[in-house]
Amino acid sequence: MAVGLGPLPPLRSVAGVRLGTARAGLRRQGEQDDLLLVELAEETRVAAVFTRNAFCAAPVTVARDHLASESPRWLLVNAGNANAGTGPDGLAAAEACCRAVAAASGDRKSAVLPFSTGVIGEPLPVQKLVAALPAARSALDSDGWAAAAEAIMTTDTLPKGVSRAVDIGGQQVTVTGIAKGAGMIRPDMATMLAFIATDATIPVETLQNALERAMATSFNRISVDGDTSTNDACVLLATGASGIAIEDADACTTFTAALSEVCTELAQAIVRDGEGATKFITVRVDGGADSGECLRVAETIAHSPLVKTAFFASDPNWGRILAAIGRAGVKDFDLAQVMVALDEVVIVEGGSRAPGYREEDGQRVMDRDEITIRVDLGRGQASEVLWTCDLSHDYVTINAEYRT
Amino acid sequence: MAVGLGPLPPLRSVAGVRLGTARAGLRRQGEQDDLLLVELAEETRVAAVFTRNAFCAAPVTVARDHLASESPRWLLVNAGNANAGTGPDGLAAAEACCRAVAAASGDRKSAVLPFSTGVIGEPLPVQKLVAALPAARSALDSDGWAAAAEAIMTTDTLPKGVSRAVDIGGQQVTVTGIAKGAGMIRPDMATMLAFIATDATIPVETLQNALERAMATSFNRISVDGDTSTNDACVLLATGASGIAIEDADACTTFTAALSEVCTELAQAIVRDGEGATKFITVRVDGGADSGECLRVAETIAHSPLVKTAFFASDPNWGRILAAIGRAGVKDFDLAQVMVALDEVVIVEGGSRAPGYREEDGQRVMDRDEITIRVDLGRGQASEVLWTCDLSHDYVTINAEYRT
Repeated sequence: MAVGLGPLPPLRSVAGVRLGTARAGLRRQGEQDDLLLVELAEETRVAAVFTRNAFCAAPVTVARDHLASESPRWLLVNAGNANAGTGPDGLAAAEACCRAVAAASGDRKSAVLPFSTGVIGEPLPVQKLVAALPAARSALDSDGWAAAAEAIMTTDTLPKGVSRAVDIGGQQVTVTGIAKGAGMIRPDMATMLAFIATDATIPVETLQNALERAMATSFNRISVDGDTSTNDACVLLATGASGIAIEDADACTTFTAALSEVCTELAQAIVRDGEGATKFITVRVDGGADSGECLRVAETIAHSPLVKTAFFASDPNWGRILAAIGRAGVKDFDLAQVMVALDEVVIVEGGSRAPGYREEDGQRVMDRDEITIRVDLGRGQASEVLWTCDLSHDYVTINAEYRT
Repeated sequence: MAVGLGPLPPLRSVAGVRLGTARAGLRRQGEQDDLLLVELAEETRVAAVFTRNAFCAAPVTVARDHLASESPRWLLVNAGNANAGTGPDGLAAAEACCRAVAAASGDRKSAVLPFSTGVIGEPLPVQKLVAALPAARSALDSDGWAAAAEAIMTTDTLPKGVSRAVDIGGQQVTVTGIAKGAGMIRPDMATMLAFIATDATIPVETLQNALERAMATSFNRISVDGDTSTNDACVLLATGASGIAIEDADACTTFTAALSEVCTELAQAIVRDGEGATKFITVRVDGGADSGECLRVAETIAHSPLVKTAFFASDPNWGRILAAIGRAGVKDFDLAQVMVALDEVVIVEGGSRAPGYREEDGQRVMDRDEITIRVDLGRGQASEVLWTCDLSHDYVTINAEYRT
């Protein structure tokens, strides 16, 4: 049911990165691979952003620790079990998996970053996972991106990947990324895993900075259901294997722009494949006094179950949008200044129904599967954009039956 | 599908209050009455609390104005059209209805308080409404409470009313209330209308104070879908017709306690009849450093679509509860102190699965239709309780098809 999301495009390999998948049998059903091992060239620089949920999963804690102690050589990702809410046993399980990866290559366990996604609160079956490691290792291949994008899926219906060639001073570097995540998605990270790699040479501070800037307008601007996961992580790898360095300000700007494109496309892909999504909705709020209030209005609209069910029904029930704007907590709000449009159709002007609005015009827009809600608060110059989807029967079905 | 909500109990009449209903034809379908006129004895004192949504509906603005200028003699309530998002025309429509009520009795229009509930953004059909006024007026009856509870319903499946006799120094006063509202319900008021009357004599300041105290732990502690309506209002009337005065501190305490009971039962009735509700869920958070953080945790749990769909599925997917607690924004949160139980079954201790927890115990609780989620944050002495319901297919159906 993904909205405007096709099959995976060709994903360019990134020199210095090899990916291998295998089936550990961690998912309740299915025969697909659910384990991903990523091998990184020596000297690879790694930037990462993790969930802000206080109940962060064991692998998040372990990955943060390992990242602080040495430069990673391996990423280990499993789908089907989140290893979250598992206490000290969960930490030990994540460490045991890292130790098993490291042992086979003579690395220390801190050279391995673990990632998990799936059901919360069940013990990670370490033995199953470790038993599948040799198969993942022998599958390691620089062309493994597409298989990797499949292996990390949970309730995703389609794999998600984006690739760009970037011209840096006449030379070409590659940026390739994959992501998963379809529910528990909201701004400030989600049940989302994203792994993005480049063969450029980039100092780790520059890398972290570029990642945070790219995320601010991509992964932190999407919402499926307002829930924030315990396991979210986004990792950016720079192998340096191309020998092309991102050093001067121009190169940084070019690289960050390409990275932002990749992140935005991946983030939008997550919403397009949002659980039960039948519509891809862009919420654009202009005319705010500051970006904070624009974001609050956009998020309140994007999180409103009433707005989302109206979109599912293709019902131009714009009153629900007004009600959401009105409860977003904007100070000294003057509703007489508010404009609301659906795509090109202006529905609300001066805080009430626009004189020229006709229901059939609203209906025409609502029948589309990609729609922009435009709000102008008429208070200033700030703007924000975020992306969300509708709330359908399938969302309820998927989340009511996820464990059964 | 209401959970544990039976037919209306007998509602005691309140001397000084007469209620009449009629059919104005404002609902898209149905033959039921959709107009309620309430006549108040002279000297009736009125307290009220209105929505905090900045996009408040025209009748809310008008009712606030009228209440500030004189003591009301009439309430006029319609279902089917919210007269919200209707701009200056909406204000004029609400005033026109008040004028029509006032004209028939020689009152000023400011002696009439208007209330509307229903679809947002459509013009109020004033003519239809005014045409039905004579019928409502001739139906005026002190025993009209049950018919009134029916007339104000929108997506409610059952009428909601509660009545109490209260002993004040050996004499009996009556408190009777009705309410409506099934969606757009959240703490801090909702698409909820509640009208409560007593025949006691109470000064208006005392009345307002009692109402606000009673609401704090009743109507402000319920959530169906986290949306806040443009039309919410709760009105408390004291006719004084019994001649029994609420004056000393003891009488105030007794009266407020009875009022709180009535409000709590009405508030819970709204949740029990929440759109598509199949489960009535009490969220109790203990051990907080202050009540603010208890409330944030309780609300985050109550608003989580993932928690709500798990309850719909009777799935003890407690990881979703942990994830909600973790993103509630509690400062310096130590997850190792957290306990979570479903009714009598402790599921999480010290931040992870309790050693003695068995899935079948969780399942036994989840199979019930009234369940308490108990959370202990292990940080202090504060507690909060709120009530919510699950998120079902019927919620989506009801809200996707509301206007069609």
